[in-house]
Amino acid sequence: MRARARRSGSSRCRQRRDDGGRRRPDTEDDPSGRTEGDCVTTARAYPNIALVKYWGKADETLILPAAGSLSMTLDDYPTTTTVTLDDGEDEFRLNGEEQLGRSADRVTAFLELVRGHARVAGLDTAHYSARVVSVNEGPTAAGMASSASGFAALAVAASAAYGLDLDTKELSRLARRGSGSASRSLIDRFAVWHAGDDEDSFAEQIDAPDMAMISVPVSTGKKAVSSRNGMVATQETSPFYDAWVSSTEVTLREMIAACAAGDVTRIGELSENHAIRMHAVIAASQPSIRYLTPASIAVFDEIAALRAEGIEAYATADAGPNVFAITRPELAETVSARLAPLATGEAKILGPGPGARLIGDGE
Amino acid sequence: MRARARRSGSSRCRQRRDDGGRRRPDTEDDPSGRTEGDCVTTARAYPNIALVKYWGKADETLILPAAGSLSMTLDDYPTTTTVTLDDGEDEFRLNGEEQLGRSADRVTAFLELVRGHARVAGLDTAHYSARVVSVNEGPTAAGMASSASGFAALAVAASAAYGLDLDTKELSRLARRGSGSASRSLIDRFAVWHAGDDEDSFAEQIDAPDMAMISVPVSTGKKAVSSRNGMVATQETSPFYDAWVSSTEVTLREMIAACAAGDVTRIGELSENHAIRMHAVIAASQPSIRYLTPASIAVFDEIAALRAEGIEAYATADAGPNVFAITRPELAETVSARLAPLATGEAKILGPGPGARLIGDGE
Repeated sequence: MRARARRSGSSRCRQRRDDGGRRRPDTEDDPSGRTEGDCVTTARAYPNIALVKYWGKADETLILPAAGSLSMTLDDYPTTTTVTLDDGEDEFRLNGEEQLGRSADRVTAFLELVRGHARVAGLDTAHYSARVVSVNEGPTAAGMASSASGFAALAVAASAAYGLDLDTKELSRLARRGSGSASRSLIDRFAVWHAGDDEDSFAEQIDAPDMAMISVPVSTGKKAVSSRNGMVATQETSPFYDAWVSSTEVTLREMIAACAAGDVTRIGELSENHAIRMHAVIAASQPSIRYLTPASIAVFDEIAALRAEGIEAYATADAGPNVFAITRPELAETVSARLAPLATGEAKILGPGPGARLIGDGE
Repeated sequence: MRARARRSGSSRCRQRRDDGGRRRPDTEDDPSGRTEGDCVTTARAYPNIALVKYWGKADETLILPAAGSLSMTLDDYPTTTTVTLDDGEDEFRLNGEEQLGRSADRVTAFLELVRGHARVAGLDTAHYSARVVSVNEGPTAAGMASSASGFAALAVAASAAYGLDLDTKELSRLARRGSGSASRSLIDRFAVWHAGDDEDSFAEQIDAPDMAMISVPVSTGKKAVSSRNGMVATQETSPFYDAWVSSTEVTLREMIAACAAGDVTRIGELSENHAIRMHAVIAASQPSIRYLTPASIAVFDEIAALRAEGIEAYATADAGPNVFAITRPELAETVSARLAPLATGEAKILGPGPGARLIGDGE
C-alpha cells in the first residue's frame, strides 16, 4: 500500500470580492500578470469503493441519501481535472473528447452551483464560464466509481477556480450535489457519509485498519442502467427497498464498530453481505435490473473458495459487473494471483488513497 | 404438449376395519389370496415448477407456507414409488440404493403420519411397516423438485397401501407434510397451494393457458444448502423476508388473474420477476446463500436476449442452479434450440402434466 503525503495544492486564483463591477482588483493585485479568464486550477481525486453501500436517495435534487454509507478511497484510477475560467460557454472534455448531452449538462449544472456560491460570496468570478478538462484513468461507468472521482475532482478544482475557500466538509457537501458518492472521495482513506439534510449530509474520515482491495475487472462495457436510474427504479418498484434502507442503517452501525475495533474479518463479512444485499434489492426491481454478470458471480464464487481454503478474502461490487476483493495487505498478492485468471483486464492491488485535492501544474 | 388421460389406478389393498385384533378380515375377503403383508401399491407423480414460488414456512411441523404459491405440474421426470406393507422395519430404496440417515428418517416420519390416519380410521394395516421403493427419473436435489414428486407419489402409494380412501384435497394436505411443494404435485396441470392452517392448506387445480417449459440443466451437483435449511436461514436472517412474504401475496393474486385471462405474457413476466425476487431474498441471508451459478445467470441472460429479439420467453429457477424457460408451445422448439448449448444435460421441452395417481403394475 502506498502512503501519500498530503500535497499542498497551488491555484493561480485568489478570492476576489466584487466591487459592483467597477473594479477587478485581481488584475492589479496578481503578481503573475494574468488577465481575467486565465484562472486555472487542477485537482485530482480517486474513486472510492463502499463497504456499506449507497443506493437510494431521500431527495433527488439535493442528492441526500436514504441511508448513510462507508467507503475506502482508492490509491489508483484517479481523475485529474483542470478548470479554466473563461468567457463564452461551459465546455467539458473527458479523456480528450468533447462531451455533449447529459454528461455535459451534469457538469454545467454543477458549475452553476459553484457560481451560485461565488455570487453569494460576492466574487466577480461568478460571471465566467468554465472549461473543464478531465482525464479519468479508471474505466468509466462500469462500477468503478468514475463519477465519484470525477465530481470530487471537479468540486475541488472548480471551487478553487471560482475563488471559493471551502473546507473539506463544505467540499464534500458540494461534491455530493454532482454525484452522491463523490462526497466520499473528498476524504483520505476511509469515509462515512452521513444521511441527513443538506447541511448534515457530508463525508468525514474514520479510523479503520489497513486493508487491500483487489480490483477484478470482468467487463469493459458501459452498464445498461445508470446508477441514478437504477436507484429510482429500485425505490419505486422493489418490494425490498424499505427493508434495504433500514437494514443498511443497522449495518452501518455494525461496520463503524468493526472499523473502530480494527476487526478486518468482521469488516469483510459485513462488506460482502451488504454488497450482495444491494444487488438483491436491485434485482428485485420490476422489471429486474442485474448489474452482476456470470463472470462477476464466478469471482464471488472464487473468493468464497479462497475463504474455504483459509485465505481470508471478501467480495464487493458497486453498481456494475466489476468485483473487488477485500483482504489483508499481507494476503493481497496471493489473492490477486488467484483472481487474475478471471479478470478481463489487470487485477490490481489497491490500498487506501488520498482525498481529493489541488495539485501543482507539474503533476 | 402431450395430453394424458387420467389413468384408473389399481391397488391390491382394500380398506380393512380393525375388529380389535381378533380377526383380520382381509385374509378371508381378498380374492387374490394374498396374506397380510403383501399389500402392494404403486403411484407415480411428477415434479412441479412454481410460477409463484414457495419459500418460507408459517409452521415448521405442519409445513404451512408463509404465503400461497402457484405451479405447473410437469409431464416428465416422474417419481414412481411402490409401497409394500410388511413386518419389520420401514425401508426406503431410491434409484436402487438403500437410503439411511435423514432421507430415510423423513420417509419414516411420513409413514408414521399415514399410519396415524390408519389408526384413526380403525384399520389394522396401521400395525405394519412399509418397504418403499422409489425410482426418480429427474436429477435429485438440484432444483428439479424431486422431493415434490417423491412425497406426492409416496402420499398416494402409502395411503392406498394402508387402506385409506383419501380424495385429492386430503392427499394434497398429506403430501404437504412430507415436502411443502409436494402438495402441488397432486394436481393436474396448474395448481394453487393455499396458505392457511392445517385444514385449509392444500393445492387445487386452476385454469391456465397451455405453456411449455424448457428445462436447462446446468449442474448435476447436489445443492449445498437444502431448501428446508435455506428457508429457515432466510426467515431468520434475511432483512427482506417480511417484504418477500407480503409481496408474494400480491404476486399470487396478479398471477391468478393472469392465468384466468390466459395472458401468457403477463404470466411470464410475473414468473421471471418472482423467481428473481426469491433468489434475491435468499441471497440477502447472512451469510449469503446463492443457488444460482454463473451458468444459471448465463441462461437468464440468454432468455432476456431472446426476448429482446422478439422471441417470447421467461426464466425461472427453483432453489438450485437449473433454469427453466417458460414460453408459448409454438415457440418451444426455437427457444430450446437456443438454450441447448448452455445446458450440461439435455434441454427438454415439457408441458403441463398429470397429478399424482396410482398406476397399474404393468406400467
